[in-house]
Amino acid sequence: MVPAVEGDLLERYARLAVEVGVNLRPGQTLEVNGLVEHAPLIRAIARAGYAAGARYVDARYVDEHVKHALVASGPDASLDFTPPWLLTRLEATGAEQGARITVSGDPEPELFADLDGRRVGAARMTELVQASLRLVTERRVAWSIIACPTEGWARSIFGEPDLDRLWDAVARSVRLDEPDPVAAWMEHAARLSARAESLNERRFDAIRLRGPGTDLTVGLLERSRWGAAATETVWGQRHVPNMPTEEVFTTPHKLRTDGHVRSTRPLVLQGAIVRDLEVTFAGGRITGVSASTGEDVVRAQLDSDPNAPFLGELALVDGTSRVGQTGITFMNTLFDENATCHIAFGQGFPECVEGGEGLDPAELEALGVNDASVHTDFMIGGPDVDVDGLTAAGEAVPLLRGDEWLLG
Amino acid sequence: MVPAVEGDLLERYARLAVEVGVNLRPGQTLEVNGLVEHAPLIRAIARAGYAAGARYVDARYVDEHVKHALVASGPDASLDFTPPWLLTRLEATGAEQGARITVSGDPEPELFADLDGRRVGAARMTELVQASLRLVTERRVAWSIIACPTEGWARSIFGEPDLDRLWDAVARSVRLDEPDPVAAWMEHAARLSARAESLNERRFDAIRLRGPGTDLTVGLLERSRWGAAATETVWGQRHVPNMPTEEVFTTPHKLRTDGHVRSTRPLVLQGAIVRDLEVTFAGGRITGVSASTGEDVVRAQLDSDPNAPFLGELALVDGTSRVGQTGITFMNTLFDENATCHIAFGQGFPECVEGGEGLDPAELEALGVNDASVHTDFMIGGPDVDVDGLTAAGEAVPLLRGDEWLLG
Repeated sequence: MVPAVEGDLLERYARLAVEVGVNLRPGQTLEVNGLVEHAPLIRAIARAGYAAGARYVDARYVDEHVKHALVASGPDASLDFTPPWLLTRLEATGAEQGARITVSGDPEPELFADLDGRRVGAARMTELVQASLRLVTERRVAWSIIACPTEGWARSIFGEPDLDRLWDAVARSVRLDEPDPVAAWMEHAARLSARAESLNERRFDAIRLRGPGTDLTVGLLERSRWGAAATETVWGQRHVPNMPTEEVFTTPHKLRTDGHVRSTRPLVLQGAIVRDLEVTFAGGRITGVSASTGEDVVRAQLDSDPNAPFLGELALVDGTSRVGQTGITFMNTLFDENATCHIAFGQGFPECVEGGEGLDPAELEALGVNDASVHTDFMIGGPDVDVDGLTAAGEAVPLLRGDEWLLG
Repeated sequence: MVPAVEGDLLERYARLAVEVGVNLRPGQTLEVNGLVEHAPLIRAIARAGYAAGARYVDARYVDEHVKHALVASGPDASLDFTPPWLLTRLEATGAEQGARITVSGDPEPELFADLDGRRVGAARMTELVQASLRLVTERRVAWSIIACPTEGWARSIFGEPDLDRLWDAVARSVRLDEPDPVAAWMEHAARLSARAESLNERRFDAIRLRGPGTDLTVGLLERSRWGAAATETVWGQRHVPNMPTEEVFTTPHKLRTDGHVRSTRPLVLQGAIVRDLEVTFAGGRITGVSASTGEDVVRAQLDSDPNAPFLGELALVDGTSRVGQTGITFMNTLFDENATCHIAFGQGFPECVEGGEGLDPAELEALGVNDASVHTDFMIGGPDVDVDGLTAAGEAVPLLRGDEWLLG
């Protein structure tokens, strides 16, 4: 049963995802993807989609229990199988200049914990993931990721299935508590864009993070650009890829990260929880990994692609983050990465490199932009982590101290 | 929460569907289709599928609420849209000589009752339905339809969400209460096959049904064959298309049905409940339709295809039916058609005509086998309905009296 207030939040979140997230145009096809457990929100998105003039809303449900059966007892050769119809569907969305809303929020974060981590890591539909990353990096779809509260997700955060409390935290994080959430988002996006612009003006050579267990220098490209909140498809449709979003982010040089970093929040990865992740970099490449749980899933990802162990993203978040202010570890990357600074190994963003768009993977690679079939964010910021921008002349400009943003 | 006894029934029903229903072969791909509300059974089918050696289990969930949003406020031109990826998926199953389990059982039979019946009737993915009927009639898939008990379905039958009672009725109907359900099915299928054989030996010219509101003569083809329980794919894989099944069935001549018939049980059709359906036939064609509810949905189906208003199936069921013995009207065609005699307007079965297989639609049509994009069963039998076989010489041979089977 969904109480009245949640029903209302469902409809409001769905409208926000359709009107701001993908900024749906009348006549556009809307693809929606989520888990079986997300049905209440996906249904609300279908209603909001048609209300906004969708030509067709095509919902696809993933069932993690069916995947569990595959990993538990399917043939080895099928673990990474992508059914061809998933590619047909993805290509149709691209060809029609469609929109795509992906619903996240893991109702059973420990579901795969009883299985062999290497098999869990291998079961990732590489072909679909690659095609999807290509669609996104080539900006051929107006996309947005949101999250659906479930009792299981609430239990993994609070130790009890307190769905109301989770909906409240999600609603505050995505500004559904504002009288006019759409207007609030416009203002929020403008503030983050201004921050990205001030970083772009400084043209830092590298970013350095220092804190307990962390001393990491991430070298940028000469042509690295910082982005935030909204982006645009090739046909000029503005959209907000993540809701919530609190970050300014860029793509570093794939060979210029050095040092060590300690994750400051747990990470849910392919059904396993990765805790106390520590990673060492040398010449851009991950040379050491340890974690108290889930280490094998991380290792399987790093082994899945020769370019997986190089950075694709660096993102900065300060203490004004709505997500951070809830004080909650959501056990969900979409939220937790927006509470604090983070990096991602794997695929970089061509749109974060001046002139990077339209280049093929080999040309991007030559520039120093990593091309991989994974993109895994993990959180490394917080009040104890100092962040500086390093100029080409070697000057250190404080960006974050005690979670406070210091740059103009 | 699923109580332990139901959990066990889930696993047993899933195994029966995999091992007897589609009779899965090691290495075969298993396509599973059902509603979001059927997730518990679909998950059990995935487990049973891999346990039986499936190469891959491809589950697709349909969400009737997403369809409701389409019918309520989508564009007219999208009502009958089939997303191309659904055809890719279906063709892959055919090309790979795969198996398909479809899960039925409507959790909300009144869901579409608030909408315009003509729009509800129009929203049926004709292209997919046609391709699927073709796959089945050409015997290019090992398929089986089962049903998943849900609280909503239980409510529509019992007036309360008594899931245990529904599971009990379903379990008895599909022989899960037998110590060895697989062996019980073998015996049951042999008994129905013997009945079909005795009808085939008699080569009746027509079947006549008489009862309250019913006097209907259904003319058969000279080459009509009666079938039952199990059938075979073109590559020789035996499978049981319906579980439960209690019928012997054939395809009549499309132009030789005359008279009138009153439905003896309600019919759930595209989310509407059709009650008190009465149909008049002249020269094989439906010339009159009335119903106290859902008439517009039936009319929309009959209007959807020039061949929809001709019969495709006649089936005989006696009082030994496990389904009939439960005394329950299941509000679900898969069950209710197996409680009593029924007819279906629309698509005929080429395998029910001697030499009919491998013929194209035009050749079948020339023989008198109807070819249509719909196939809608409705129930017309019961203890008050007498059924006779009519020989070419005009002799009437009693087949059913008081629901008792009389033919040797």
